[in-house]
Amino acid sequence: MTTSNEEAMAQLLRHRASIDNLDAVLLHTLAERFKQTQAVGALKAAHNLPPSDPAREERQIARLRTLAEDAGLDPDFAEKFINFIIQEVIKHHQAARG
Amino acid sequence: MTTSNEEAMAQLLRHRASIDNLDAVLLHTLAERFKQTQAVGALKAAHNLPPSDPAREERQIARLRTLAEDAGLDPDFAEKFINFIIQEVIKHHQAARG
Repeated sequence: MTTSNEEAMAQLLRHRASIDNLDAVLLHTLAERFKQTQAVGALKAAHNLPPSDPAREERQIARLRTLAEDAGLDPDFAEKFINFIIQEVIKHHQAARG
Repeated sequence: MTTSNEEAMAQLLRHRASIDNLDAVLLHTLAERFKQTQAVGALKAAHNLPPSDPAREERQIARLRTLAEDAGLDPDFAEKFINFIIQEVIKHHQAARG
């Protein structure tokens, strides 16, 4: 099965449109996730709860690695990804504390 | 308005459940995004199209910065995020080429 260059270009544009849609999903989901972590930060500050919870983070990473495997995604990438997000959350919490 | 420690803990657990749901959305959306970029990579290889397209990447970054601002997200973080994903896509393409 061969595809003409014209058809290949049409396919490329369809994939790019999907990628753009998925990026919008990612971005808005991240915005909502940061809203939740901001609320968690405020709650912890108001109730003198410790800012970080290593046991919770360990459970999150283990869960995401399993979800990644089921979704055909590299578990190491999933772990790198969640650590990337957690670093940003820590930055937000530090900024909020002044 | 004060909240008891018990209520604070219940709120914390509700936020964490939302964060876990949102992480599952992020992970599955990323899995779908990598399916799309894998298809793009195969298409480009089959039709001898250049593997990277700097003009397209520039448009993607500009669009995501705008989306981020509208969603109340730091545009610099959005740019860092898309670059993080693009690095992983490049790694996949390099692995696919052998």
